[in-house]
Amino acid sequence: MHTDLVAALDIGGTKIAGALVDGHGSILVRAQRATPAQKDGDTVMRAVEEVLGELIASPLWGRVTALGIGSAGPVDASTGTVSPVNVPGWRGYPLVERARAVVGGLPVRLIGDGVAIAAAEHWQGAARGHDNALCMVVSTGVGGGLILGGRLHPGPTGNAGHIGHISVDLDGDPCPCGSRGCVERIASGPSIARRALADGWRPGPDGDTSAAAVAAAARAGDPAALASFERAARALAAGIAATAALVEIDIAVIGGGVGKAGDILLAPLRKALADYATLSFARHLTVVPARTGTDAGLVGAAAAVLTARMDATAGV
Amino acid sequence: MHTDLVAALDIGGTKIAGALVDGHGSILVRAQRATPAQKDGDTVMRAVEEVLGELIASPLWGRVTALGIGSAGPVDASTGTVSPVNVPGWRGYPLVERARAVVGGLPVRLIGDGVAIAAAEHWQGAARGHDNALCMVVSTGVGGGLILGGRLHPGPTGNAGHIGHISVDLDGDPCPCGSRGCVERIASGPSIARRALADGWRPGPDGDTSAAAVAAAARAGDPAALASFERAARALAAGIAATAALVEIDIAVIGGGVGKAGDILLAPLRKALADYATLSFARHLTVVPARTGTDAGLVGAAAAVLTARMDATAGV
Repeated sequence: MHTDLVAALDIGGTKIAGALVDGHGSILVRAQRATPAQKDGDTVMRAVEEVLGELIASPLWGRVTALGIGSAGPVDASTGTVSPVNVPGWRGYPLVERARAVVGGLPVRLIGDGVAIAAAEHWQGAARGHDNALCMVVSTGVGGGLILGGRLHPGPTGNAGHIGHISVDLDGDPCPCGSRGCVERIASGPSIARRALADGWRPGPDGDTSAAAVAAAARAGDPAALASFERAARALAAGIAATAALVEIDIAVIGGGVGKAGDILLAPLRKALADYATLSFARHLTVVPARTGTDAGLVGAAAAVLTARMDATAGV
Repeated sequence: MHTDLVAALDIGGTKIAGALVDGHGSILVRAQRATPAQKDGDTVMRAVEEVLGELIASPLWGRVTALGIGSAGPVDASTGTVSPVNVPGWRGYPLVERARAVVGGLPVRLIGDGVAIAAAEHWQGAARGHDNALCMVVSTGVGGGLILGGRLHPGPTGNAGHIGHISVDLDGDPCPCGSRGCVERIASGPSIARRALADGWRPGPDGDTSAAAVAAAARAGDPAALASFERAARALAAGIAATAALVEIDIAVIGGGVGKAGDILLAPLRKALADYATLSFARHLTVVPARTGTDAGLVGAAAAVLTARMDATAGV
């Protein structure tokens, strides 16, 4: 029996990945190009077209019913345009219109990359079975997405769940976004490394100053490294607690490179969450590591179109 | 033609108000009792029963199809219980079960009072026509509720929109809720007055140290009074910006006694919002005063059952 497939694109500052995905979340066909991030907008689009071209060339293409796109943000689902911070050639770029022309008029849905990760974790990962969840990526930046009432909550423009840029320290350090004391400014990998260095941590002979190196030092007991992870944990906890107070969530899922630091991050995070998530309806909140891997962006983009169709069907 | 009515209860620490409300939001019958807030739980419930008894005695009662309850929080809509901070006799009190017994088994819906205000502002007030809105009450405390995707978002327990207890200053002053640097701890009326006094503001001969008196002093140019409102405005702006980043809203509605301070609060709030709401999808966010008045709690409790029925109908 031939069941429907969807096409998925995961567009980031480094690579453009594409896939055909079935209703179980299995990836049947893959394509990928490096993102020509410093080139003009149409050159970037040609890389997208090449990825889509490989998918279209598959004998399975005839079963594809829709295209889901998860893109580095900000995106604007209401206009079908994208303006990824790391792709300067795309500013208000009409990605949805261009992609739709390539795929012969199939329905296309655009969401932010954090929203896509949330869709993947809800469908296949640690948020499965949870109707109200925050899924985060803690890495070079801090992103996220929300599941509310059992459904993906992309918001009108596809950017909801932007926990990296909520201020948890209104007098804090300026953030490149223009605000102050943002979660990302305190808890991203580069922020963790910068603070550890400023407080006296020194890298080993390999000169590695990544957050992973700080995590290794913290595991070995380095006080500045430990303090920097604790500070990041407090910022994440305040952000997660704010989310719980605002929309009621019962689980927060942490992925991304810094999320992989494990208990060096999660232990102080759970402790700090007890300090900040004090309201009766927020106290049961749990924090767990993400379960989806490097394909989360693709799987999530597929989930966004598969669940949109399920929602539409349920609404008839 | 006889159209359906709903019954509404607005339960606070000072009074218990009840009404019969029609499909246009008009209040046709009213009843009210003082809240015997320091008495045992069953005594408080008797006051609720007296209010409901007056409504039931109305010749219009036969047209009532449901009861909506907005209560001081925390509430738990999932269990039908309430634990209002200012009513110590009610801890996990089975309000929905008790009320349902009084109204002869009609459907009963429970929401928090902030959620009720949001329902009222969306139905009849400043958030009308806005599909994504945060409605706040800035008063002795700071509460709120959310409209998302055109619908009330009470969350699973009826407490969503608790903007007063998100931390915008993770190292800030301890809040009675157990957390630190909460919006309420900085922007509530008593917080505004306390900070103005600490910074050198002195009340007039009447000894009035309310936030309204601080607002009057600010209008007359008192620097400590102005600075205290500016600080409150920054905390509110950081909280509103966080909400916009997390769920995407296009309007924030400010009600309550402090909200009535007008431009003394709103002018610095709009200025601070430009500092904190920097993401592309949050920059168009507007802040406006609430339009519903003292009946907002009743009207909102009615709206919550009226819209629940509309949603259910739409879902068939």
